[in-house]
Amino acid sequence: MALLVVGSVALDTVETPFGRIDDALGGSAVFFACAASLLVPVQIVGVVGRDYPMDELKRLAARGIDLSGITVADGESFRWSGKYAFDMSTRETLETRLGVFANFKPQIPAAFRSSEYVFLGNIDPELQLDVLTQVTKPKFVACDTMNYWIQGKRTALLKLLEHVDCLMVNDSEIRELSGDWHIHRAARWVIERGPKYVVIKQGEHGAVLVGGAKVFYVPAFPLEDVFDPTGAGDAFAGGFMAHLAKAGALTDRTLRLAMVYGSAMGSFAVERFSVQRFDEIAQGDVVSRVREYRDLVHFEPEPLA
Amino acid sequence: MALLVVGSVALDTVETPFGRIDDALGGSAVFFACAASLLVPVQIVGVVGRDYPMDELKRLAARGIDLSGITVADGESFRWSGKYAFDMSTRETLETRLGVFANFKPQIPAAFRSSEYVFLGNIDPELQLDVLTQVTKPKFVACDTMNYWIQGKRTALLKLLEHVDCLMVNDSEIRELSGDWHIHRAARWVIERGPKYVVIKQGEHGAVLVGGAKVFYVPAFPLEDVFDPTGAGDAFAGGFMAHLAKAGALTDRTLRLAMVYGSAMGSFAVERFSVQRFDEIAQGDVVSRVREYRDLVHFEPEPLA
Repeated sequence: MALLVVGSVALDTVETPFGRIDDALGGSAVFFACAASLLVPVQIVGVVGRDYPMDELKRLAARGIDLSGITVADGESFRWSGKYAFDMSTRETLETRLGVFANFKPQIPAAFRSSEYVFLGNIDPELQLDVLTQVTKPKFVACDTMNYWIQGKRTALLKLLEHVDCLMVNDSEIRELSGDWHIHRAARWVIERGPKYVVIKQGEHGAVLVGGAKVFYVPAFPLEDVFDPTGAGDAFAGGFMAHLAKAGALTDRTLRLAMVYGSAMGSFAVERFSVQRFDEIAQGDVVSRVREYRDLVHFEPEPLA
Repeated sequence: MALLVVGSVALDTVETPFGRIDDALGGSAVFFACAASLLVPVQIVGVVGRDYPMDELKRLAARGIDLSGITVADGESFRWSGKYAFDMSTRETLETRLGVFANFKPQIPAAFRSSEYVFLGNIDPELQLDVLTQVTKPKFVACDTMNYWIQGKRTALLKLLEHVDCLMVNDSEIRELSGDWHIHRAARWVIERGPKYVVIKQGEHGAVLVGGAKVFYVPAFPLEDVFDPTGAGDAFAGGFMAHLAKAGALTDRTLRLAMVYGSAMGSFAVERFSVQRFDEIAQGDVVSRVREYRDLVHFEPEPLA
């Protein structure tokens, strides 16, 4: 079933203890789409400047990513630049130049409006709400956000929560949003405000899905080397949403497996710079890694007496 | 099969955002024994001063804890005092008064020397090594340690590692010991030095077992309220070792289940001050919680095509 992502399409400059890359494909919608397209076709809506390397972007079309929702606007592309500490989990943002992204008003092409699975990447919650007025009958909507919007656009964000099925954020974001340091209470707080599900991404500590009375954990895949953590959260979202779209059903089983697909995609994302790793792998590699997760967490309780 | 623990027997004064307790039963051996004794009989070796509330300690005997290895020495008992921040994961040590614990030289009673499962709580690694010369033919030895010994008694600690089956530490400890921030590489580093298994405790983020090529994760139980985190790691060790002793076999299955028993015991420990929670529960409560973990992590991969 059709999967739509709306978010940033950026150029990332990243420095890690292992190397550096300049003006590489990045942004939430790009990481999401590259991961998701390993499982299902993806529709992407975003904006780039005249300076964007369109040949590189167009290569994504071959992966099943429909680029007809990408607008090329006069001005510079969104650029982000960051540097990771040796522990690879703390990072410093060196520069953020919004460029044409500052005036991004997502226009959902007519052909995308009937998408059933919709991911609203981290943009102004007013724009995320506006996207929801443009899609006709989504079956499952998830959104990301960030501390900037939690602080600056709280009212719009709370309104958005009434209209989404799933909030997907990291632990510091849900703590700030709910005012509760305890992530399980924070998740309940969110669920009382609309979403049926909350996914909390915790980087090297994995991710947790809270929905109704259920809690489901998936660990981060135990990689011996993390090369570049940029985009892991968006790749997670891509794997999560793509599995749901592919399964076409929202059951306890598909949601759990979606979490594992999300974690697997996040683990691939960090093995190379930018979206490079997704060029090297195919659906079978993802399915294999998903199966490997089972051995990481599976145990057999003693039979009932 | 017999389970022996050697460690501190202390009096803890703890302040949390929810309350305060003064001079309560504490210490690694006490938390370990209270947890473990829910599954198997436990032998405890430690030292207390003349001021120790022996009536409270003796109540533990009714739980199946053999106290004949407790020495009462002239002087004050070991006292620790700490205060937890509102997030319950950072704490400040207000005072540590070693008292008679400063001269602790563990003497293993003859009746305990044939114990097959041995846990060496966090004491001087030279003393931990000495304990191993006193036990005759242990089947499985695990040890804890801390940054103080990693810095001050590195040589003895590395020698100890050659003689234990399992190192059980938290993430900051294994990072400091190995000099590697990456916990999986750090675990391999330890395994190259002797232990077949490494258990890394990560508090609210659960725990991970690394052994050979295998990695196994168990999450922390999603409690809505953590009352007092003191002793969670030692209760974890108690549950882990007690399950292995009870199962009497070191298989992939028993080790995984031991991790879940450890996590369950840690989750009970933090629900009350001191070892109070272990007075309220029975083996059946632990077994029930262990079964609940399955739902937290279980998922079904798609069948192979």
